[in-house]
Amino acid sequence: MALHGKNIVGSSLLGADTETFQAINPATSRKLEPGFHNATQAELDQALELADRAFGSRGSVEPAQTAALLERIADEIEALGDELIERCGQETALPPGRLTGERARTTGQLCLFARVVAEGSWVDARIDTALPARKPVPKPDLRRMLVPIGPVLVFPASNFPLAFSVAGGDTASAFAAGCPVIVKARPQHAGTSELVGMAIQKAVAATDMPEGWFSMVHGPGRTTGLDLVRHPVIQAVGFTGSVAGGRALFDAAASRPRPIPVYAEMGSINPVFLLPGALAEQAEGIAAGLHQSMTLGVGQFCTQPGLVIALEDEGLDGLLAALGRLVRETAPATMLMGSIAQGYREGTDELEACTGVELLARSSQAPDPAKTQAGAALYATDAATFLASEALRREVFGPATLVVRCRTQEEVLDVARKLEGQLTATIHAAEGELDQHGQLVSILQTKAGRLLFGGFPTGVEVCPSMNHGGPYPATSDVHFTSVGTAAILRFARPVCYQNFPESQLPPELRNENVRDIWRLVDGMLTKEHVA
Amino acid sequence: MALHGKNIVGSSLLGADTETFQAINPATSRKLEPGFHNATQAELDQALELADRAFGSRGSVEPAQTAALLERIADEIEALGDELIERCGQETALPPGRLTGERARTTGQLCLFARVVAEGSWVDARIDTALPARKPVPKPDLRRMLVPIGPVLVFPASNFPLAFSVAGGDTASAFAAGCPVIVKARPQHAGTSELVGMAIQKAVAATDMPEGWFSMVHGPGRTTGLDLVRHPVIQAVGFTGSVAGGRALFDAAASRPRPIPVYAEMGSINPVFLLPGALAEQAEGIAAGLHQSMTLGVGQFCTQPGLVIALEDEGLDGLLAALGRLVRETAPATMLMGSIAQGYREGTDELEACTGVELLARSSQAPDPAKTQAGAALYATDAATFLASEALRREVFGPATLVVRCRTQEEVLDVARKLEGQLTATIHAAEGELDQHGQLVSILQTKAGRLLFGGFPTGVEVCPSMNHGGPYPATSDVHFTSVGTAAILRFARPVCYQNFPESQLPPELRNENVRDIWRLVDGMLTKEHVA
Repeated sequence: MALHGKNIVGSSLLGADTETFQAINPATSRKLEPGFHNATQAELDQALELADRAFGSRGSVEPAQTAALLERIADEIEALGDELIERCGQETALPPGRLTGERARTTGQLCLFARVVAEGSWVDARIDTALPARKPVPKPDLRRMLVPIGPVLVFPASNFPLAFSVAGGDTASAFAAGCPVIVKARPQHAGTSELVGMAIQKAVAATDMPEGWFSMVHGPGRTTGLDLVRHPVIQAVGFTGSVAGGRALFDAAASRPRPIPVYAEMGSINPVFLLPGALAEQAEGIAAGLHQSMTLGVGQFCTQPGLVIALEDEGLDGLLAALGRLVRETAPATMLMGSIAQGYREGTDELEACTGVELLARSSQAPDPAKTQAGAALYATDAATFLASEALRREVFGPATLVVRCRTQEEVLDVARKLEGQLTATIHAAEGELDQHGQLVSILQTKAGRLLFGGFPTGVEVCPSMNHGGPYPATSDVHFTSVGTAAILRFARPVCYQNFPESQLPPELRNENVRDIWRLVDGMLTKEHVA
Repeated sequence: MALHGKNIVGSSLLGADTETFQAINPATSRKLEPGFHNATQAELDQALELADRAFGSRGSVEPAQTAALLERIADEIEALGDELIERCGQETALPPGRLTGERARTTGQLCLFARVVAEGSWVDARIDTALPARKPVPKPDLRRMLVPIGPVLVFPASNFPLAFSVAGGDTASAFAAGCPVIVKARPQHAGTSELVGMAIQKAVAATDMPEGWFSMVHGPGRTTGLDLVRHPVIQAVGFTGSVAGGRALFDAAASRPRPIPVYAEMGSINPVFLLPGALAEQAEGIAAGLHQSMTLGVGQFCTQPGLVIALEDEGLDGLLAALGRLVRETAPATMLMGSIAQGYREGTDELEACTGVELLARSSQAPDPAKTQAGAALYATDAATFLASEALRREVFGPATLVVRCRTQEEVLDVARKLEGQLTATIHAAEGELDQHGQLVSILQTKAGRLLFGGFPTGVEVCPSMNHGGPYPATSDVHFTSVGTAAILRFARPVCYQNFPESQLPPELRNENVRDIWRLVDGMLTKEHVA
């Protein structure tokens, strides 16, 4: 299938702008065909108007149709076959094995949301029946459920060109909630975006969803992106990327005459606390696991462990020796794009310029700039330096990790207290050792959205219990996750129906429990009908 | 009990500032004793530091202790007896019957949250057990629940000096979620606030909650209030009041280096749609109900019906004739404070100055400014005028209602589409009539947080199904309600524990379901233990 380079506006393909941009193969620094057309104002307006009309035309959300849409998107993505993996590999330098796995995650996620919608209990239905004889005033009949929030704008991530992109978690959860979606595609993987966008366009048509339920537009984030965020049709925004980018969208949304929520998943350094017992028992094993986690995907994960905190002792010396060896042996690899590689260079340069920060090891082989490569790096500092320097608490996106050597357990707690909001925090401890460090768990619970005991933070399971979120700047809204089934809650709002006639109530709230969902009826969770 | 006029800072009473302010009896325009001390910077800092330390000192939330606190606050408020009703009546001109009812609502609300916390399922516990043999990667053990967000700042409402004030819904739900609370008291009912604040201080001590779990400070909203919103210790804000006030807090919170959520319940004109069948059947009854709802509490309710939309016909003529009579017979009454009475005068003056707006009726008796009185007023306009004038869509806080006479059903829908976000929208229809007006219900569902069939929007039930919220400007966060048990969700955030040892998990997430709560275990809702 030849790429057309156009904007997907409902069922149309539009590209009136004569100027185009091209994606770049980071492994060769060469431009890829074809050129892509940034959306014109008229094309953006059309996408917005279609989304608005599509949302307005749906009196109520039909779970079966939504589930069919999600499953059909998964099928259409599968049907793209190797072409998708090839193009995506050219645009991102991610290897085929990784991309095949990510595609499975993407389609699995779509099907999981389809099941959540088909099952239906996510709407949190609540029914309080009337008490007409209550004194001093009768109690009305009140029924409440979650309904879709309206058209959603999605800004994909660069580091997950499938699972967090055009048909990724934000789009899947917005569709699942019953919202139309407009995606502002990442220019770096514009071809991948087009392939997936076309798959969604087909699925929308095949499942009889309204025209404009999905659009995908090209354009610069600072103009097209911000203009879309400020447009009154848009009711919520999903974003994955840098703190600067997420904050710009958040600020634009908050300063609208009518503010809207922005779910930005931004930066995190994902601290790993290594307690002495764990290091004494398995320094080598931790070194191997940490090395794998910090360099996985050239360190380009939101959950890359960029910070390690441990007490100075022999165990830590052993860990650092082993980890240093592994880092030196790490071959430089191609990053997603030139700007990320440059950001990594600047970030590591800044670390190296910090007084009190020591370079322990780096990839022996020099990275090739023509291949947009980066090598791994390992740094160390002491607690006093870390606590005094804000720069050391900022994310360096890539395969670098800073180790903070603490002299006392109190210093470990001080470092924990000084952390900004995180997606994850990890503790390695020997059996029973954590019982003496309850305070560390308490502190980290206020800092992070996910706490790990052992293991490493990369690898984010898609399931009901996942929380991929955390206090700012990990995300812009600490209430919500962007991974897992609870992500659907971002795109829904409660509506209460008072004394409504049965025929006018949504099916989920009728006396007969026609959807067979869990409902809180007069304070009791049940699947029974209402008498 | 003599009022002391001081700030309640943890277990201390502080008032270092020598300048004081006094509350005013709106019925006499006279100042009430004693003087109240605005909090000094040092006193604010102390309240903040205590709240921070109190929150940090609690490793985990003990539901039994939280429930005991909530119940004890209710008991202590009851124990204040007539003194509370008397002082509150002096400060607000609200009659004893209303205040006795509001007190019962306040204590009932506290006890309802105590039951929600004691039952415990609100934490939305989810457990996904490990699959160590899964390919290509093992599935970890993941467990997730809601935990308290941190210290909460509460700005009480002026129009509910008990139920939405110091121990009102915001405070009750924040305590229920496990958060410490700082209240910035409303100066207009400072004495009432002190009485209730002292009751909470006693309850905190009696239930062994940490020092600083509650503080209440005095000070101007534009300085003290905004300073508190901007302080890093504060993690969330509850507010009930005007759009201007709520928006100022929202903007301050959104522009923090680390933004926090603001739950502002602001303005609403609560449209009432009267379909021809309903008017034909019961114009007189609707007139009586509407009159009661629009003038209840001198129209000082967030849910006061300020807008009526109907088709021009004999039924509407009958309604307006009957309603006009009732409005003329309405005796002027004292409003809560001079600034509200003035705002009402300005709002009605503005309505009267609008070309195309007709004054249909007003209270025959003139209001007495010395008694801070306001009379009822009824206005009418046509759809074209309403659609063209933004001023007509703004809330006039008080006992005034504007009727929009439509010529066609399409005009009715146009008016619905043009509405801003609302707390409520009401439809009166004859039996079966709504089936022909499905589009109206669809439109209103996107505009309001609560839809009523028949009846009137004043009277907000406190229960699980209530949604007292809505799209902006009804509230600043459409996801949440400020009334009913779901209000607790505003002050909690999810945390996920991965591969955590049983001993370190919160009780809610252990294999044995020690709290006997509903949990989503491997996708199934159950109270069973995990095997």
